[in-house]
Amino acid sequence: MIIVMKPSASKREADDILAQISGAGLKPLYMPGTERVVLGALGDERTLYGLHLENNPAVERITPVLSSYKLVSREAHPKNSVFPIGPVSVGGSDLAIIAGPCAVENPEQMATVAAGLRKLGIRILRGGAFKPRTSPYSFQGLGLEGLKILKAVSVENDMACITEVVEVADVETVIPYVDALQVGARNMQNFRLLTILGKAGKPVLLKRGMSATVEDLLLAAEYIVSEGNPQVILCERGLRTFETAYRNTLDLNAIPFLKLHSHLPVMVDPSHGTGIRELVSPMSRAAVACGADGLIVEVHPSPKTALSDGAQSLDLEQFARFLEELKPFAVAAGKTLK
Amino acid sequence: MIIVMKPSASKREADDILAQISGAGLKPLYMPGTERVVLGALGDERTLYGLHLENNPAVERITPVLSSYKLVSREAHPKNSVFPIGPVSVGGSDLAIIAGPCAVENPEQMATVAAGLRKLGIRILRGGAFKPRTSPYSFQGLGLEGLKILKAVSVENDMACITEVVEVADVETVIPYVDALQVGARNMQNFRLLTILGKAGKPVLLKRGMSATVEDLLLAAEYIVSEGNPQVILCERGLRTFETAYRNTLDLNAIPFLKLHSHLPVMVDPSHGTGIRELVSPMSRAAVACGADGLIVEVHPSPKTALSDGAQSLDLEQFARFLEELKPFAVAAGKTLK
Amino acid sequence: MIIVMKPSASKREADDILAQISGAGLKPLYMPGTERVVLGALGDERTLYGLHLENNPAVERITPVLSSYKLVSREAHPKNSVFPIGPVSVGGSDLAIIAGPCAVENPEQMATVAAGLRKLGIRILRGGAFKPRTSPYSFQGLGLEGLKILKAVSVENDMACITEVVEVADVETVIPYVDALQVGARNMQNFRLLTILGKAGKPVLLKRGMSATVEDLLLAAEYIVSEGNPQVILCERGLRTFETAYRNTLDLNAIPFLKLHSHLPVMVDPSHGTGIRELVSPMSRAAVACGADGLIVEVHPSPKTALSDGAQSLDLEQFARFLEELKPFAVAAGKTLK
Amino acid sequence: MIIVMKPSASKREADDILAQISGAGLKPLYMPGTERVVLGALGDERTLYGLHLENNPAVERITPVLSSYKLVSREAHPKNSVFPIGPVSVGGSDLAIIAGPCAVENPEQMATVAAGLRKLGIRILRGGAFKPRTSPYSFQGLGLEGLKILKAVSVENDMACITEVVEVADVETVIPYVDALQVGARNMQNFRLLTILGKAGKPVLLKRGMSATVEDLLLAAEYIVSEGNPQVILCERGLRTFETAYRNTLDLNAIPFLKLHSHLPVMVDPSHGTGIRELVSPMSRAAVACGADGLIVEVHPSPKTALSDGAQSLDLEQFARFLEELKPFAVAAGKTLK
Repeated sequence: MIIVMKPSASKREADDILAQISGAGLKPLYMPGTERVVLGALGDERTLYGLHLENNPAVERITPVLSSYKLVSREAHPKNSVFPIGPVSVGGSDLAIIAGPCAVENPEQMATVAAGLRKLGIRILRGGAFKPRTSPYSFQGLGLEGLKILKAVSVENDMACITEVVEVADVETVIPYVDALQVGARNMQNFRLLTILGKAGKPVLLKRGMSATVEDLLLAAEYIVSEGNPQVILCERGLRTFETAYRNTLDLNAIPFLKLHSHLPVMVDPSHGTGIRELVSPMSRAAVACGADGLIVEVHPSPKTALSDGAQSLDLEQFARFLEELKPFAVAAGKTLK
Repeated sequence: MIIVMKPSASKREADDILAQISGAGLKPLYMPGTERVVLGALGDERTLYGLHLENNPAVERITPVLSSYKLVSREAHPKNSVFPIGPVSVGGSDLAIIAGPCAVENPEQMATVAAGLRKLGIRILRGGAFKPRTSPYSFQGLGLEGLKILKAVSVENDMACITEVVEVADVETVIPYVDALQVGARNMQNFRLLTILGKAGKPVLLKRGMSATVEDLLLAAEYIVSEGNPQVILCERGLRTFETAYRNTLDLNAIPFLKLHSHLPVMVDPSHGTGIRELVSPMSRAAVACGADGLIVEVHPSPKTALSDGAQSLDLEQFARFLEELKPFAVAAGKTLK
Repeated sequence: MIIVMKPSASKREADDILAQISGAGLKPLYMPGTERVVLGALGDERTLYGLHLENNPAVERITPVLSSYKLVSREAHPKNSVFPIGPVSVGGSDLAIIAGPCAVENPEQMATVAAGLRKLGIRILRGGAFKPRTSPYSFQGLGLEGLKILKAVSVENDMACITEVVEVADVETVIPYVDALQVGARNMQNFRLLTILGKAGKPVLLKRGMSATVEDLLLAAEYIVSEGNPQVILCERGLRTFETAYRNTLDLNAIPFLKLHSHLPVMVDPSHGTGIRELVSPMSRAAVACGADGLIVEVHPSPKTALSDGAQSLDLEQFARFLEELKPFAVAAGKTLK
Repeated sequence: MIIVMKPSASKREADDILAQISGAGLKPLYMPGTERVVLGALGDERTLYGLHLENNPAVERITPVLSSYKLVSREAHPKNSVFPIGPVSVGGSDLAIIAGPCAVENPEQMATVAAGLRKLGIRILRGGAFKPRTSPYSFQGLGLEGLKILKAVSVENDMACITEVVEVADVETVIPYVDALQVGARNMQNFRLLTILGKAGKPVLLKRGMSATVEDLLLAAEYIVSEGNPQVILCERGLRTFETAYRNTLDLNAIPFLKLHSHLPVMVDPSHGTGIRELVSPMSRAAVACGADGLIVEVHPSPKTALSDGAQSLDLEQFARFLEELKPFAVAAGKTLK
């Protein structure tokens, strides 16, 4: 840790901090410059966080030398994490495709979409049962009823399934119905939810918040892993920026960056990441080309009548074409579509 | 509602939508232009949301004519909403000051700060009991123990108090201990929490999310109000932008904008809005000058040893000076410091 | 054009605007709703811009039906624009690769890099002669001397070349030395420069500003095209967002969006778009996968000693590997590396 | 300067950098940590910029200890810079108000507005002669003709005047006609223009770019000052963020931050900073309350017919009210309206 003192800081204020550093078992360093005094702390600086040196009015700025996450970093764990969701292996040479509607609406809708997807080779079905919506006047999901439908159609079609948990109180209800749990962008920093999912014993797909940095995302993953669940998938789904031509600005830089700095699998959600049906296929190809381990795509049997996110959903025919367009890029990336 | 059709849309596709508009009880309008067909729907367009016309592949763009919020709008309710938190009246001619530490740390800290604040005339005490933190390795708050301390010292000093509720499951626990409830920026779109607070029967201070638009904020308030609780305070606390010189970019444009479009009281959090101790006083003066109804300020008896947010906290002496500096601007704004 | 009146607007104020619309030769439309009056204007609404209806205090909001650009839109010109830079055809089935250092530093550097690139099959050389830099204390480029070096080595190696014009006054100086001209991100809205480049008679690579929307970019291109130069290449090079892990946030959504809405070729700059050497190759593959017509990549014979942008530059060996990694994705995209 | 090495960096690579630091005349420091080696350089680190250590592939990250600007910093020059524009003293106890239309449209418009402003006590007139516009189809200003009108009416009314220079080539033309020069937001990093203005001998109002950090702004000011012109006014005019309710997000945090870190005067443009007439007055009061030295406000005799920016312009009657509303806040801030 590097501590830059204010120009006005006295020798005594510096000594005080050096003593704190020693007291915490690290090696202190005193570097008097021409315009500022700089202090250093050699050793595991994470033990210094508890001292809150940033509160000290004599301190101008603190620069950590180490990243603030540890368990999820590639430095700690150089090999890729690989784990299964149903028959699909995530993080290795499979390109995992999760598909299905934004929301479970009724048994017929789910039966149609699941059968259609299974015929195209898809093995992981998605469908939302609890739908937090921006407006109180929108459809809010079927709840438990939706979970049961999701489970039934996925068993029937020999598929694994995944759904979003919105609330700490729902975690126990949801777990028996699904093979993996999803944390939505708005909940990425719901730390109590993360803590509980750290004990869920099932893979967690963690969506990046729309104004979260990649470091925030890695710290959120660290919460889950530090509670004992190493099966976390990082998922990029678009940032909120000044650009209004699309629903979000998909940040694909994050894919190779996360693969470089973490051993966890990384997926991309091209549906929320664009909000525009015509962009889903090209951005999925791009995601695969820069190293994504999988995609989560909204598919609805009849997007025109969908109760949510219809404008960014593909119908089954469009999705079949999507897979055709994707295949050569998966091959170029050395991945097998699953 | 204005519906712009794609250039490729057929007459039949337009007719189909016009029929849907009629069917919903609104007056349809057909406007063929030189390059696009435009459709209109006259009447209460909020009933059209359920038709999801944006999903229709023949539609290029939909522009609502009315705002998506209703109960919180000034159009619906031209007079300012005014309601009390303890002895302070919020939304009227009082300038409500809420002060106290980020987190309740122990009884001595709270006793010192409360007595100091009360002596300076402050009547609403803040203090966090549940602290969701970015890193799993940081202090997470005292929980119920913290609530009890907060309640005890506020009673002792004849002050009202407010704390943040982080979780649906905590609402019932928290209510008896406080005079008002706070929703943090990360929970602004925790719609289940908002729904429950709609039945809390106590004022709710709703913080704007760091990437939420003012419309998002008004819609979140609409959730609470539509469940029966009209006592909502909107609170600006800074946006996440590309600027890294301060913790957040305080968006004061929002203050006069919200006062123009809504009847709800509007407060400002200059501590999170800047993250820099030296900026808290000038930005509080600015907030008051552009029409804020109140401020929520972090004050700690010893910021140097604070367990969270010390770098943006004022000590009691600094806070006394802060009030002195604020006073002439409150007077200029026609408000009485409370 | 759709004009939403304020709730307070009188019938007379609406009539006044309807008369203006008629007077401009468009068909006016009057749509009284329950809470607002809405007016419409049918016809070529671009002629209405001169009326500045947005200034009218009785108007709440104006929504154009048509896009504000015309010549560059795919509606106006459904086929892809294809034109050559030297031996490379841009916008068609060639994948155009422009490579070279950020700045021309000296003849040896340029000779080495040009020979190395040519051997790898590259036909368009880049190199900056005028370098506007954020700090007055940084290297500012060789100017005319740099242009001469660039020209000489490109002729020697049978390559075309491109350089940035920073200033209206430089355009005439630069034109004879290069095969194409580049407009930097900071100059994207230097409208006088755009106007002059509209008469340059050579292709212009127009970089998107770091806070420009895709609509802003298309309007900037419209400036050049409307002055008579149809050879414009749109270039995405990253946005400034809150994310600080990389120099910029490369917005690849823009690629398929621009290809959908415009007939102009679209390129990507993965060097500025990431600022990190390790991300250049994966993001180039992603760009090609989502439809880019070309790439502009920083290559320096010795990035360690580069006078600018060394941290994002590839050396010749890394660039050879880059091309190997890119090839299968170009094939998958149906493009030929050039 | 603090240099964090990559975990993979060898002792030899570190030694190499230490030698470079010594060679540049600074004192090198070697700090081996448990997970990373950290190097330090004590002395005037600005001389190290030329070594481009950030290009070194063995380097993970570089943290400067000193700010990158020097002449404009308050450390270098603790007292406020104060200088006159006509009869108004900027940076001291005067609150300088610059008012006038966005664009000079014709002599009558200017005569009316100037006379009206003068009667209200305003002494600095603004008016644009060269208008760079987003769309090629908008009004582009009267050019030299506009300058002459501006000069004539300001002399007639005993006012000083200011106008924007858009282009290096215009500087000489413009100088004789005005008392101060304005650099627009889009030109904040037009470094050649800044360099020439460094020799202009007249005050320069430098507008912050809409995606420029405060550090970028200070570096741009450093360009002008380092060329010999110390009379620079920093001007905040709003950032481009995700918020679309207003034209820009006015960043008032910048005001106290810039006053803390620089000795230059700081002004605010509430017209562009909001884009909404109703917000101009409250945000001006806020600007004064947090320490602004002046305001630049758009006033037009007939905003309804203005050729540009009418929606954010005040008419003379509104501006008189604006001054009335501002006065008590100027008094509270200890400033005299000028």
